[in-house]
Amino acid sequence: MSYNALSQHFEQRYHLQHLGAICGWDQATMMPSGGNEARAEAMGTLAVLCHQQLQDPKLADFFAAAKQESLTSQQTVSLAEMSRQWRDATMLPTDLVRAMSLAGSRCEHAWRNLRPANDWAGYLPLFEEVLNLSRQAASARAEALGLSRYDSLLEQFEPGMRSDRLDTLFGDLKSWLPGLIIQVQDKQRGEPLLQPKGPFAIEQQRSLGLEVMAMLGFDFDHGRLDVSAHPFCGGVSEDVRLTTRYNEQDVAQALMGIIHETGHARYEQGLPTLWRRLPVGQARSMGVHESQSLFFEMQLARHPAFITRLAPLLERHFGAQPAFAPDNMARLYTRVNPGLIRVDADEVTYPAHIMLRYEIERDLIEGKMEARDLPERWDQLMQDYLGLGTKGNDKDGCLQDIHWTDGSFGYFPSYTLGAIYAAQQAAAMQQQQGSLEQLIESQLHTVFEWLQDNIWQHASLLDTDKLIQQACGQPLDATAFKQHLMQRYLG
Amino acid sequence: MSYNALSQHFEQRYHLQHLGAICGWDQATMMPSGGNEARAEAMGTLAVLCHQQLQDPKLADFFAAAKQESLTSQQTVSLAEMSRQWRDATMLPTDLVRAMSLAGSRCEHAWRNLRPANDWAGYLPLFEEVLNLSRQAASARAEALGLSRYDSLLEQFEPGMRSDRLDTLFGDLKSWLPGLIIQVQDKQRGEPLLQPKGPFAIEQQRSLGLEVMAMLGFDFDHGRLDVSAHPFCGGVSEDVRLTTRYNEQDVAQALMGIIHETGHARYEQGLPTLWRRLPVGQARSMGVHESQSLFFEMQLARHPAFITRLAPLLERHFGAQPAFAPDNMARLYTRVNPGLIRVDADEVTYPAHIMLRYEIERDLIEGKMEARDLPERWDQLMQDYLGLGTKGNDKDGCLQDIHWTDGSFGYFPSYTLGAIYAAQQAAAMQQQQGSLEQLIESQLHTVFEWLQDNIWQHASLLDTDKLIQQACGQPLDATAFKQHLMQRYLG
Repeated sequence: MSYNALSQHFEQRYHLQHLGAICGWDQATMMPSGGNEARAEAMGTLAVLCHQQLQDPKLADFFAAAKQESLTSQQTVSLAEMSRQWRDATMLPTDLVRAMSLAGSRCEHAWRNLRPANDWAGYLPLFEEVLNLSRQAASARAEALGLSRYDSLLEQFEPGMRSDRLDTLFGDLKSWLPGLIIQVQDKQRGEPLLQPKGPFAIEQQRSLGLEVMAMLGFDFDHGRLDVSAHPFCGGVSEDVRLTTRYNEQDVAQALMGIIHETGHARYEQGLPTLWRRLPVGQARSMGVHESQSLFFEMQLARHPAFITRLAPLLERHFGAQPAFAPDNMARLYTRVNPGLIRVDADEVTYPAHIMLRYEIERDLIEGKMEARDLPERWDQLMQDYLGLGTKGNDKDGCLQDIHWTDGSFGYFPSYTLGAIYAAQQAAAMQQQQGSLEQLIESQLHTVFEWLQDNIWQHASLLDTDKLIQQACGQPLDATAFKQHLMQRYLG
Repeated sequence: MSYNALSQHFEQRYHLQHLGAICGWDQATMMPSGGNEARAEAMGTLAVLCHQQLQDPKLADFFAAAKQESLTSQQTVSLAEMSRQWRDATMLPTDLVRAMSLAGSRCEHAWRNLRPANDWAGYLPLFEEVLNLSRQAASARAEALGLSRYDSLLEQFEPGMRSDRLDTLFGDLKSWLPGLIIQVQDKQRGEPLLQPKGPFAIEQQRSLGLEVMAMLGFDFDHGRLDVSAHPFCGGVSEDVRLTTRYNEQDVAQALMGIIHETGHARYEQGLPTLWRRLPVGQARSMGVHESQSLFFEMQLARHPAFITRLAPLLERHFGAQPAFAPDNMARLYTRVNPGLIRVDADEVTYPAHIMLRYEIERDLIEGKMEARDLPERWDQLMQDYLGLGTKGNDKDGCLQDIHWTDGSFGYFPSYTLGAIYAAQQAAAMQQQQGSLEQLIESQLHTVFEWLQDNIWQHASLLDTDKLIQQACGQPLDATAFKQHLMQRYLG
């Protein structure tokens, strides 16, 4: 049966990607620096091999034949997901893929020095090359998929999502978010705020982190916690490798990071065992993935009831201090402070950073804007959304993110889609199971069971709209997110 | 050029094996147990892929064409080494390879319980299956290589080595070793011996180990030290992953283990950068590899001058105690004590364990002995060589090693070849550079430079005989080993 032949092919791919994922984790956590060149070559060889395997001409025949076979409904979805990965890997000419990879490496490499030097002029020609190739790729993808150019890139990260929907969604956000930010700042201005006093020993931060991961149901028989310069959730779903970075002066940084990554990790660990080796058994989309990390970090961990549970743990690990009082911690963890840097942004201002990037990348890809106009547009939108300018300060403006340096256009919306999905999930869960406050206080397991039943176990067996509709009783909608922010920040 | 096509093929193989080596290390050191099944599948997929790539029919044409090409002398050797790996992977029918793999896994798996239960009868049928398939493989290899059956297995680990040479070499050892063992025991009987008193904190053992590795020139930019249940030297030559196991009551166990593995590691780290990705740039043989670990552990680390350097380090890490006196430590580290277990054996009795296994495995493979006769033969040879019986105690007799359980016949001689080569290298080095005592006291770097120049940099560019002849001024010869033992243990 051709379906089985395809399954075998993709299972083999899964196994090879397993080796790549573990070696990628090792590279970030364990590898001595002198091993980097050989590792990069080895990872490159694997990437080429995996790409070549998808180019195997036999696959086209298998896909054609499998469509005629009598399949279960789940096998039909599985076939569609395999086909999606296969089309994704084969719709671009090899020369273009190679050129993009080269230009991307060059631009990203240079960016590491150009950003700290605030050197927009030095960056521009490299970025123009990346943009030019990304536009070509978008055109090729658009033609193959029958989508607009930007949508064809978005499709890689958020299958089924379209920019007209994002325009509506973000249009709604834009109508109330800037006002909300000002209101919240006004409200918070007079609030007392005690900063916890460090240093916080790294060994203690690590054991606190492990304890909180256990409380959040992380399965240590299928994963571990380590340190890397840029925290991530890697490895494979059978063996999730989560990393963090400790700051001796700030205990919240690693702690909230660990909770965030634990959300990603539990999604991976909760994927259905039966389908795990096939594309259909993998996470639904970047937005759904981010909805789990943000559910854990924002809906759960910054909830006053959760902070009340955290306080005694903090005291046990670092000794008592007034700043660990739950009220104070709750204020600290929900402080809203518009700033220039996305990765430092709080829950309320974060979507502003995303909307800005979305508008710019959409216009760049659709040819409605040129690379050279980026700093000015960035400054303008920052003024509009957060009242902050970046003129002459590109390093904290349009040079701050790594994403575009290697041509990852279409990814940014996932962050805010994740925040919105997380709020929808929290609202639905509370409707069905009782308030999060009660759940956190006395039956945290119910939270994870709900996510397991409604999100994790479905992997990619449902499309995102169906997944969200089925879990939350409504399609993608920012109402719950707005209500969540209003209640937490103005309530 | 076909030679270049072959080089590319083998370089790609090297990169893929890199991923396997790192993931293998991870499996033993970092992986949570729940990840094992997926990891085993991933590693299995890689092994099959690497094997399949060598089966590519294009390779035969490339090899045929490359022989006609104008190559440098090093390229000619490189071609021969590629061809050796290729023939090795292709000379057995696939069905036989699969059957061996299955029977080996089954037997090894069962052995893990049967050995502690001392269950020879339960083990026998499984072992007979493994032996039967290994004999078939030996026949097929023998025919393809024009060697005897046992020699065709030996060839996998010690290219160029033949059993008639081993018979002569071990015949010589047998003529003086059992007598020497008795003499040494007589001499050591009255010697005072103080055991260091633990516990020795693991963190301190680890920092001592790292310090000694640094003293031995281990390059921490291209490798690291971790913990595993069974210590090994893994990873890749650009990133050597060395492991140990700590015993809180016995500081010598991890320390000597680390020194041993550092010998393997420096050989790997010292391989020529230029050839590293090709078979010719890899370690010459298992015996030569073991000669480096045994040079470090036996020739260097158990030398009184080295122990004199170790003593203050031990005191610094664990506090002073009378047992750390260099004289006492030297006696401890050279104590000869015939026992049943190979891996616990001292330098003097170790070859007896190897000769016994060599004789048995040679006769098993050549059909001169049957599996059922193993316990009796083992007991007889243990009586002959070490005066110890194993009747009714197979768990400490013929069931003790993992090697034969999965059909690794032909490996054991490498251990004693390594000890002999190490002694030859030490003798030659001392002739050229001055006594080891002086070198250890004041110019340890000369030791490593000599090994770099004479062994490491040659990788597989020379065959073993030429390598040893060139380095030591003589071919394989046990005289230096005998002199070393006489001098250290009776001198």
